Amino acid sequence: MTYGLGLYLKDGLVITADTRTNAGIDNIATIRKVNLYQSAGHATMVLVSAGNLATTQAVAALLDQRLGVVGNPTNLFDAHTMFDAATMVGSVLREVMAANANFVQGYGDPSATLLFAGQIAGGPHGLFMIYSAGNFIQATVDTPFLQIGELKYGKPILDRAMRHAETTFGEAVKLSLLSFDATVRSNLSVAPPFDMVVYRAGSLEPVEIRRFEKHDDYYYALRQQYSQAIRSTITDLPCVEWPGVIDG
Amino acid sequence: MTYGLGLYLKDGLVITADTRTNAGIDNIATIRKVNLYQSAGHATMVLVSAGNLATTQAVAALLDQRLGVVGNPTNLFDAHTMFDAATMVGSVLREVMAANANFVQGYGDPSATLLFAGQIAGGPHGLFMIYSAGNFIQATVDTPFLQIGELKYGKPILDRAMRHAETTFGEAVKLSLLSFDATVRSNLSVAPPFDMVVYRAGSLEPVEIRRFEKHDDYYYALRQQYSQAIRSTITDLPCVEWPGVIDG
Repeated sequence: MTYGLGLYLKDGLVITADTRTNAGIDNIATIRKVNLYQSAGHATMVLVSAGNLATTQAVAALLDQRLGVVGNPTNLFDAHTMFDAATMVGSVLREVMAANANFVQGYGDPSATLLFAGQIAGGPHGLFMIYSAGNFIQATVDTPFLQIGELKYGKPILDRAMRHAETTFGEAVKLSLLSFDATVRSNLSVAPPFDMVVYRAGSLEPVEIRRFEKHDDYYYALRQQYSQAIRSTITDLPCVEWPGVIDG
Repeated sequence: MTYGLGLYLKDGLVITADTRTNAGIDNIATIRKVNLYQSAGHATMVLVSAGNLATTQAVAALLDQRLGVVGNPTNLFDAHTMFDAATMVGSVLREVMAANANFVQGYGDPSATLLFAGQIAGGPHGLFMIYSAGNFIQATVDTPFLQIGELKYGKPILDRAMRHAETTFGEAVKLSLLSFDATVRSNLSVAPPFDMVVYRAGSLEPVEIRRFEKHDDYYYALRQQYSQAIRSTITDLPCVEWPGVIDG
C-alpha cells in the first residue's frame, strides 16, 4: 500500500508520498514514488503512484524516456495544457495495463492510481487523479485535495482545515505531515520517510524532493505538539449537559 | 454500512452507534443498532451491531427472548462473567450464521460484527468485539477503544487523545461525537442520529440510550468549535525550515 496526497492551493501545489512498498510483511522496501518531469521556464510536472509497483514504474519510465522525443504522442513536453498532459499520462497507463494486465491478474492486482500535478507555461497549475482505466478527475476550489492509496485515516484533518485560497504553504506542509502521521499510526503499510514537493504557481522552476525521515526533528516536534494540542482542545471544549450521567 | 464505537474507560464505558442502514443509495432507513440487556443490581449489557441487518437483528432478538429463560445456555442473565456473556453472544451469532449464511451468500454478505460491553455483579466492566466467526477480542488498558464498521476516518482522533485512565466521561462523549463527525463528513453510509450509552463502572444500574439528532445543539456547537480549534492549531504550530521554498 501507499499513501499519496496532493494539495491544490491558490498559491501552488504541495505533493507528498510515502516510500513503503511491500509484497507481504516479509518483503518491505523503500521506494521513491515521486517522479519529476520538468524543464525550467516551460513545465514543472510531478507524478505520484500507488498500486502495482511494476505497473507504476513502467508508466514513470516510459514517460521519462519519451520526454522531449519529437513527434511522440506521449511526450509530456509537447503538451500545451495540464489537461493534455494528464491525458498523456492516462494513455501511457492504459498502454502498460494493456501490455501486462492479462499476464499479471493470476498473481495479483495489476492496477495503479496516479496523482499528477504541475504547470505548463501559459496555463494555470493543476492537480489530477488518474484511475487505472486511464480517465481522470481534477482538483477544484471546492475539492482542493486529492488522495491515492490508504487515504481514510489522513482525510479528517484535511476536511477540517485545508482550504484552497486561505491555506499557506507553511500550513500545507503541516497538514500534509499530520495527515501522513495519522495514517502511519493506523496502517503498517504506510511508513516514513516521506517525500515532499512544493511548487509555487507561476514560477515554472524545477522543484526538488525533500525527504522527511522518521526521526526528522521538525516532523517529530510537529506530531508531538499537535497531539498535545488535540488533547488540550478536547479538555477545553464544553461538556454535554446530561444530568445524572455526565458530571461535567 | 455502520460505525460503532466503544470506549473502555477506567470509570466505565461509552458506547455509540449511528442509525443508518441501507441496501443501496435508494433504500436508506434509520434503525436502532444499540440493544440493552439489563437487570438492576445484577447486570448491564450493551450490544452494538454492524453488517447484515437480518443477521444482527436475529442475534439481538434471540438474545432478548432467551433473557431469563432458565436453563437456556445463551441466557445472558445466567453468565457469571462478561467473558462468559461474550461467549454466549458469539455462540448465538454462530447459530444465526449456520442457519442462514448458505442461503444468503448468493445475494450478499451475511456476516456481522458486534460490540458487546457491560458489567456483571462481582466482576469488572469490559468491552468486546465479536467477529462473524463468533470469536472475540477484548479492549485493554493499552487498547482502550474498539470500533466496528466504517472505522478508519474516526480513528485518528482516538489514537491521539483517548486514554483509558485519564479520559473523563465528558471528554469521552466529546471524542465519540467528534469521531463520528469525522466519519460522517467522509462517508455517506454513516449518518446521524447517533445513539449513545454511558455506563458508570460499579453502578450496575440500567442505562438509557441518548439520541443525538443531526441538529442537536451540543453536537453542532462541538463540531464547529473543534474544527475552528484545529484550524487555529495548524496556524499556530511552527513552520518547517525550508529556505527558498517556504517563507514561514
